[in-house]
Amino acid sequence: MKALTYQGANNPPQLSAVPDPKLQNPKDAIVRMKYSSICGTDLHILKGDVPTIPAGRILGHEGVGTIASVGAGVQSFKEGDDVLISCISSCGTCDHCKRGIYSHCETGGWCLGNKIDGTQAEYVRIPNAENSLYKVSPGKDEEALVMLSDAFPTGFECGVLNGKIVPGSSVAIVGAGPVGLTALITAQLYSPNIVVMIDGNENRLEVAQRFGATHTASPSKAVDVVNEATSGKGCDTVIEAVGIPSTFYQCQELVAIGGTIANIGVHGAKAYLHLENLWDRNITITTKLVDTTSTLMLLRLLARGKLPAMDLITHRFRFDDVVEAYATVEKASEAKVVKILIEM
Amino acid sequence: MKALTYQGANNPPQLSAVPDPKLQNPKDAIVRMKYSSICGTDLHILKGDVPTIPAGRILGHEGVGTIASVGAGVQSFKEGDDVLISCISSCGTCDHCKRGIYSHCETGGWCLGNKIDGTQAEYVRIPNAENSLYKVSPGKDEEALVMLSDAFPTGFECGVLNGKIVPGSSVAIVGAGPVGLTALITAQLYSPNIVVMIDGNENRLEVAQRFGATHTASPSKAVDVVNEATSGKGCDTVIEAVGIPSTFYQCQELVAIGGTIANIGVHGAKAYLHLENLWDRNITITTKLVDTTSTLMLLRLLARGKLPAMDLITHRFRFDDVVEAYATVEKASEAKVVKILIEM
Amino acid sequence: MKALTYQGANNPPQLSAVPDPKLQNPKDAIVRMKYSSICGTDLHILKGDVPTIPAGRILGHEGVGTIASVGAGVQSFKEGDDVLISCISSCGTCDHCKRGIYSHCETGGWCLGNKIDGTQAEYVRIPNAENSLYKVSPGKDEEALVMLSDAFPTGFECGVLNGKIVPGSSVAIVGAGPVGLTALITAQLYSPNIVVMIDGNENRLEVAQRFGATHTASPSKAVDVVNEATSGKGCDTVIEAVGIPSTFYQCQELVAIGGTIANIGVHGAKAYLHLENLWDRNITITTKLVDTTSTLMLLRLLARGKLPAMDLITHRFRFDDVVEAYATVEKASEAKVVKILIEM
Amino acid sequence: MKALTYQGANNPPQLSAVPDPKLQNPKDAIVRMKYSSICGTDLHILKGDVPTIPAGRILGHEGVGTIASVGAGVQSFKEGDDVLISCISSCGTCDHCKRGIYSHCETGGWCLGNKIDGTQAEYVRIPNAENSLYKVSPGKDEEALVMLSDAFPTGFECGVLNGKIVPGSSVAIVGAGPVGLTALITAQLYSPNIVVMIDGNENRLEVAQRFGATHTASPSKAVDVVNEATSGKGCDTVIEAVGIPSTFYQCQELVAIGGTIANIGVHGAKAYLHLENLWDRNITITTKLVDTTSTLMLLRLLARGKLPAMDLITHRFRFDDVVEAYATVEKASEAKVVKILIEM
Repeated sequence: MKALTYQGANNPPQLSAVPDPKLQNPKDAIVRMKYSSICGTDLHILKGDVPTIPAGRILGHEGVGTIASVGAGVQSFKEGDDVLISCISSCGTCDHCKRGIYSHCETGGWCLGNKIDGTQAEYVRIPNAENSLYKVSPGKDEEALVMLSDAFPTGFECGVLNGKIVPGSSVAIVGAGPVGLTALITAQLYSPNIVVMIDGNENRLEVAQRFGATHTASPSKAVDVVNEATSGKGCDTVIEAVGIPSTFYQCQELVAIGGTIANIGVHGAKAYLHLENLWDRNITITTKLVDTTSTLMLLRLLARGKLPAMDLITHRFRFDDVVEAYATVEKASEAKVVKILIEM
Repeated sequence: MKALTYQGANNPPQLSAVPDPKLQNPKDAIVRMKYSSICGTDLHILKGDVPTIPAGRILGHEGVGTIASVGAGVQSFKEGDDVLISCISSCGTCDHCKRGIYSHCETGGWCLGNKIDGTQAEYVRIPNAENSLYKVSPGKDEEALVMLSDAFPTGFECGVLNGKIVPGSSVAIVGAGPVGLTALITAQLYSPNIVVMIDGNENRLEVAQRFGATHTASPSKAVDVVNEATSGKGCDTVIEAVGIPSTFYQCQELVAIGGTIANIGVHGAKAYLHLENLWDRNITITTKLVDTTSTLMLLRLLARGKLPAMDLITHRFRFDDVVEAYATVEKASEAKVVKILIEM
Repeated sequence: MKALTYQGANNPPQLSAVPDPKLQNPKDAIVRMKYSSICGTDLHILKGDVPTIPAGRILGHEGVGTIASVGAGVQSFKEGDDVLISCISSCGTCDHCKRGIYSHCETGGWCLGNKIDGTQAEYVRIPNAENSLYKVSPGKDEEALVMLSDAFPTGFECGVLNGKIVPGSSVAIVGAGPVGLTALITAQLYSPNIVVMIDGNENRLEVAQRFGATHTASPSKAVDVVNEATSGKGCDTVIEAVGIPSTFYQCQELVAIGGTIANIGVHGAKAYLHLENLWDRNITITTKLVDTTSTLMLLRLLARGKLPAMDLITHRFRFDDVVEAYATVEKASEAKVVKILIEM
Repeated sequence: MKALTYQGANNPPQLSAVPDPKLQNPKDAIVRMKYSSICGTDLHILKGDVPTIPAGRILGHEGVGTIASVGAGVQSFKEGDDVLISCISSCGTCDHCKRGIYSHCETGGWCLGNKIDGTQAEYVRIPNAENSLYKVSPGKDEEALVMLSDAFPTGFECGVLNGKIVPGSSVAIVGAGPVGLTALITAQLYSPNIVVMIDGNENRLEVAQRFGATHTASPSKAVDVVNEATSGKGCDTVIEAVGIPSTFYQCQELVAIGGTIANIGVHGAKAYLHLENLWDRNITITTKLVDTTSTLMLLRLLARGKLPAMDLITHRFRFDDVVEAYATVEKASEAKVVKILIEM
């Protein structure tokens, strides 16, 4: 089959023929891919930020496809079922899974395109298939569904739920990339009064406004905008959706007494926490690799027309052009890319 | 009256005659002190760590006394009532108070011995008296009650409640001073399986064992002891009860996936947060100045014999010897001081 | 002054001259009324359902007005301030208030138009004024604010918050009167997928559709409509907004496994709970007299245009015509009354 | 093999030879039983209270045994592993399981000794084995573990967790049978101030005192005892552990404003809920079939010596005498039976 493989740090990925995946475990399923996407994390991988990934690994952890075959232990799916692939594989049964921490499943977690081959291929093997795939109702828009593999659960669980957004509250989101936007969209499920979107790129702030931001600001203006919008109190919820020390620091400037900083960003370096200012301000800071425990709920909301998932897709590529797709995502800001859809 | 006043950074405090406090506001009460104590925070003040405090300020924010007079707006207390003084003054009515954040009451918070004169005096003025004092039932041990002004609510709210301790869980407490010990004692109200107490001082670890620690460790052995006690998982709850970067860093080493670091320590400097290790470990970090919203509950537990508050009192001084009491607290580790009782 | 007084069970209330209220306690305020309203509870009173109310009591517990005078213990309001009057008076400081149960404040609770004279008068005395009044920002629409005295906090706290509505969930509301409608409106702050409104009156169901119900049903069709909308599962949240045994029973038919029945209705009789069906269905039932702890949040939402409070007002009367206003409310269904505004 | 089978309503069960169970599904395991027990629910079955159970069904849903064989989809257990059998079978993956409602698993729930053959046999087939069995560490006391199949999770989850017991609170438990006692024991994990145990049988109240009840009362004295213990406020948590209308009604008399009634009892009839008294008292009522989501935590507590599970076992029988064991349980009060251990 054709698949896109990692070629080591700072090399372009390569589309080439590789052997088809096979069932290895009774709980596996093989899925024939229909749609995939490219995540910001995939770019990190290409830069060598995930050094445990070997050259030759098939990239990708998002997608929708059709069950090609299942192992002897898989009963809730059968050949021909259309399925959404979760970016997190989980058994549902180990200690972490029983607590809802699917991201740290003892036999799963973030496997696809990382510990095992991923979804940017014609076929993919899904371990722990029963708890890691979601049946797609016929007639549902499968393109929009790709946004529910990772982007929406991540923005919602790591940002909105961890950030404890409630009706009438104030929210700041630092970073208006795809995950910042899914946080922005799903924040509105809880009817906050104020959502300030902060980014250095004007295009992205415009997009954020279309998706419902009540205020936007460049990083240098963020403190002023938040103070004005909140009468100097700061925001009840501050969501970090970038992953560098300076944006994490900005969150500390923006959070109100009693508020929460919910980190989504993938950080490669330590950052200062200004405990000398924050020790007595009754704040909470959370980190999280998405557990995808919200996927069923997000599917229900999408089915009811309450998630503008389709509107996140700004660009489409055929799988044969996937290398060009990566090049486009690399220059996301100037190309006004939010999310890319790859059609197999 | 006699009172102990701050004399500027790094000067010894001075016991001298000062004017009696007067009612300034209809919500004030004047309390004649019976017992007070010295808190670690008082030592910070003497070193100049709270530069907003002017010379001449009467120190102290703990104590038990008798109502001497009340303002026109105070109805739930009258002259002669014995009362516990909360270290936090709160109106119960402003935005923060309505959310239970008494520590940031718009007309209160940590006032005593800080923004206004404190409790190391013969009389003290208590603003927002109705929500800041607690009637003491006749026959209750008033000496033990002094431990409920600050030490117990702080260990319990900032450490135990924020740390979300549940039955069967694992806990590490970094710092075995008075507040680390109240966290240790009140942690046991939730029946954790393991409580590892960490401190560089052997005496303090012995005390911790008497108060129920299941394991003790010096800082250099802490990681090993926690790993052995938790099968390498780390602790569900880690409580920081020191307030310096190195102990905050140690907490990051000890916390399990899905766990919580509950900060109690008063920090004077920023500290590194190792987000490159923690971003995907689904942890929570909390900070808090005590709200004293748990005081009623702690009073009930004390009345039922469930809080060994009396056992924290290792030394007693008459108020005339309060300067010597400070000197004793300064060398707490070697003098095996936990808490000091000052009798007026 | 003029005031509307209760004349005993089943007698019409009487508008007549009575003495002006006076400050009785340092925490009191006297408010000159600008707007009031009539609540379903007022009709219960007229029928004699609250037998503790003596003849001569001034009716009403809703309204907006201007501070005329304050007691010595009231500092956050002064003469001339425009204020929203909460239907619940609370000290903020007693045991219940410290737990947020303002409705059972030891010196307050539901007093107005019940234990003491109410708001259907030119002036009203408000006990515990600081915690029971809310300053109205200049320029805010004071007519809409009257809906926040009781109707909105009740629908939101007793129905929506107690009902634990979350994004994507299913909700049934039994009873489309004013409080059922405020539950419907505020339910949408949490983005449920389905809100089925149930009432025997067609007019009310039409109104419910305008306010956002996704489905409507008469009581006899309710089970079928809910089953179809939820694939036979029943609703995650069922809100009782009537107060009679038959509607409480219907809630039991509609609730899903793991769901919640949140009672708002004022019940005058016991009702059967079908424990033989429900003991193993993991449900929760809640009751509540509104605490009005959400008033600040609702004020913020209203200020931001997120509560269509104004749209609830279907009829207006001058205070001189208040007896006619009551007659209109008595035939609410046929007169298509939702809420009435009384202009003083 | 030998097994105890149901013989229809009001007939004694029969110990006889039946065919050995076989693996039917890849997720099944066959367990050779070492210990079982008899639950109050088994007695209900014999009386015909669970009419869906056919004659010939093997009884029992508690026990400890050794894996004899596993299906192709079972990977976390292998032949020879000692296991605790949960009374609830669950897949961990269906909608209900993902929400932690294992009791209503689409392919599980309370199956054993009900929908399929149970544990009072030499061998039992366990569906959904991976999520329904718990590995027993070598050297653990397997007899005590039998109390964790049902009795402890039920008392803890349905009574203590649903009842939201917190340190310093007041608790009443109506019914001092085995499940009332496990509620009593596990309530103490949260350090309540008061636990009033209510039962008509003197023997049982004596046992309750040994297990930590602070007060005991007969039903006719319960209101007086609770009022005296709580200064007339009633109990924050009231646990129903009987399952008849009169005990459910008593709970309504005992609950404090803002409190919770947590139902554990298996009810065969509807009961009155006095909404005319309770609608405005801000109470919560919960029902629940145990989910056994707390089993891992209870195992940890037991391993640490924090659950006196062994002390619940008052009588032992060899499996050959299981019919006599039932006869003994039938007269539990006079025979002073708490729990019976059946040795295979």
